[in-house]
Formats: sequence, C-alpha cells, structure tokens
Amino acid sequence: MTEKATKRHTDPALAEARRNQVLTAAAECFRRKGYHGAGMAEISKTAGMSAGHIYNYFDSKEAIIEAIIQRDMEEMFSIFQQFEDDPGDLLTIMLDGADQGVERHIDKDKNALELEMLAEAARNQKMAFLMQQSDTHARARMRRLLTGERSLVKEATDKELDARINVIFAMIGGLAIRRTLYPELQKDTILLALRPALRTLLSPFE
Amino acid sequence: MTEKATKRHTDPALAEARRNQVLTAAAECFRRKGYHGAGMAEISKTAGMSAGHIYNYFDSKEAIIEAIIQRDMEEMFSIFQQFEDDPGDLLTIMLDGADQGVERHIDKDKNALELEMLAEAARNQKMAFLMQQSDTHARARMRRLLTGERSLVKEATDKELDARINVIFAMIGGLAIRRTLYPELQKDTILLALRPALRTLLSPFE
Repeated sequence: MTEKATKRHTDPALAEARRNQVLTAAAECFRRKGYHGAGMAEISKTAGMSAGHIYNYFDSKEAIIEAIIQRDMEEMFSIFQQFEDDPGDLLTIMLDGADQGVERHIDKDKNALELEMLAEAARNQKMAFLMQQSDTHARARMRRLLTGERSLVKEATDKELDARINVIFAMIGGLAIRRTLYPELQKDTILLALRPALRTLLSPFE
Repeated sequence: MTEKATKRHTDPALAEARRNQVLTAAAECFRRKGYHGAGMAEISKTAGMSAGHIYNYFDSKEAIIEAIIQRDMEEMFSIFQQFEDDPGDLLTIMLDGADQGVERHIDKDKNALELEMLAEAARNQKMAFLMQQSDTHARARMRRLLTGERSLVKEATDKELDARINVIFAMIGGLAIRRTLYPELQKDTILLALRPALRTLLSPFE
C-alpha cells in the first residue's frame, strides 16, 4: 500500500473532504470548458491537488462525473426522505416542500453543470446511461411516494402515475432552463403558479 | 458585386434554400461537437458548400446561431398565431394545441441542440443574450394571449401572470430534459398529466 492510499484509509473524514474538493473543482471546470473540453490537468490545477493525488480517489474523469451524479441523487433523495418521514398530510408536505425543489433548480452553478451534462449526454452514451440510471431511481422513488397509503392518487394507473411524475419532473427540472433564459425570475414568483399546478398533479383529475 | 452575391439576390427562393442548408448543417455540427467545438470548416463540409459560399449568407458562426434562434422563435410564434387566429374558446384551443408544444419539445435533434445552446449560454455572454432576448419576446407574446379578452386569467396581477407564463414554459421546456433522461417517454403519456396542469395554469387559482 502506498503512503497516500494509507492516508486515505486511515482518515475517512479527510478522504471525504478531499473527494469533495475534487468534485467541486471538476464541476467548475466542466461548467467553464464543457465536460469534453476539461481535462484532468485542469481539474487538478483548479482543485489545488496533484493529478497523482486525485487518482487516489478517482480513476478517471468518468469516475468523477459518476460521483457528481451520485451526489446529486443523494441530495434529491434526502428531500424525498423528509417527505416520507413527515407524518403529516402528504399533499401539504409536498406543496410546502416545493420551495426546496425550486431552490435546487434555480441555483446558477448547479444549472450550468446540469445543462452541460444533458448536452453531453446527447453525444456521449456513457453520460446518457449514467444520467438515465439516476433518473430511473428518482422516478421509482417518486412513484413509491405517490402509491403510498397517504397519497391522493395511489389508485392511478401505471401510465397515469408515469404521466404525473414526468410532468412534475419536467416542471421542476425545466426551471433550470427558465433561469438561464430569464435570470431575473424569483423563487416566490415561481411558487405562486407552481404550487397550484403541483396540487393538480398530486390530486385526482376531474 | 460578385457573381455569387448576384446569384443570391436574383433568386430569393434558392438563397433561402441555401441558407436553410447551412442552418441544418450547422445545427448538426453543434449537436455533435458542441457549439464551441464546431468550426466553419466542419459546417462547410457537412453542408456540402464551400466556406466562401457560406460567407455569402452568414458572416460568422455567431450569425448562424442567431439565425437558428430566430428560426426557432418564428416556429414557436406560428403556434401562438394559430391560437390567436382561432375564434373559439381560448382554454380549449390551448389545451388542444398542447400536443404541438409537446411535439416540438420531444424531438431528439431539436432537444440536443437546445440543451447545447443552453449549456453554452452559461459560458458565452453573447449566446446568453441572444437566447434571453428571444425568450423575452416569447413571454411577451404569451402575456398578450393571457391578457386578451378571451382569457380566463386576464385580470391576474403582473406578477401572477409572470408566474403562470414561466411555469407553463418550464413545464413544456422541461420536456427536453425528460426525453433526454427517459427516452421511452411518449407524447400521449405526457399529455395525460400535462393537460390538467395546463388547465390549472390557465384558469383562476382557487
């Protein structure tokens, strides 16, 4: 075992901090140069770590983007978990929680990276696969929420559930596009119309 | 005047066809290589036209992307125009017309280019400016529709109208993201939930 590898294993908190340092630097490089245009040398420079040191944590640029996708998914799942853990009325909880979803999707840096990854997915099958896999998990998690005991739409057909989930995701994910095209758009303005639409999508259709 | 320039002016239909040939080739190159990565040489090769010939129609790559944005806007406006020209009930017309909006946003090639342009906008001020300008026109056009005599929400405050317009655009624009992340998603599934949500966004809130 090399000295570096030993260090990594003996202090998990430090290893985690270093991993995050790489992910943050890589995210910045991908936004600035595009995923394709950003190399390990630039990521290493931006992170202030040697390339050798980075390779202790990630084998490749692909492993880095995989970890970024994983981290995003965990952040999203922690919101779902809050909804599941809250014993109150599910519709109220989700309408109240909508501002967290909006917040996540109007962050300028997060948006820029997500749009870059989506654009890259159109020309990079591995990227498309990783993102689609993560989205499949997210849809399954949302489906669990919507078919649970407390849901108002638990008896919807599979196709209708799929429709509801995808339109909710389109509406919230689409905010990343909105903020790029209309940077002045504010969270409280969005919520004024997003909550009524979300209420419709979480209630039986007439 | 050069012979080429003369040709362009003497046959407007041919000039228009040549312009479209360049736009189509450029769109393909931008999707495949990214806007930044695609040069005039590649566009010229893909279009099967000499670079000199292309320069008769477009001064630069920037002029090409400007024309692509313009063309997209005109396509969108022709949908708005249909809504305006139809003498029927506005809500019904817009709900019926939703499938055209969905269709536009689940086209794989169009999506890939749009996501590439949005990603580029995060690092290219000129691109951001052009896209934001086009979006400002689109919002104004939608606002005209929603404040017209036949609208159910014509008395909404400016802020509420802005909210409604942006959530509608987020929901429909966000379909580009959905189709990238979930390619199996079908138009009729989307419409099953999109129409009820759209109805809410076009009606007075409770």
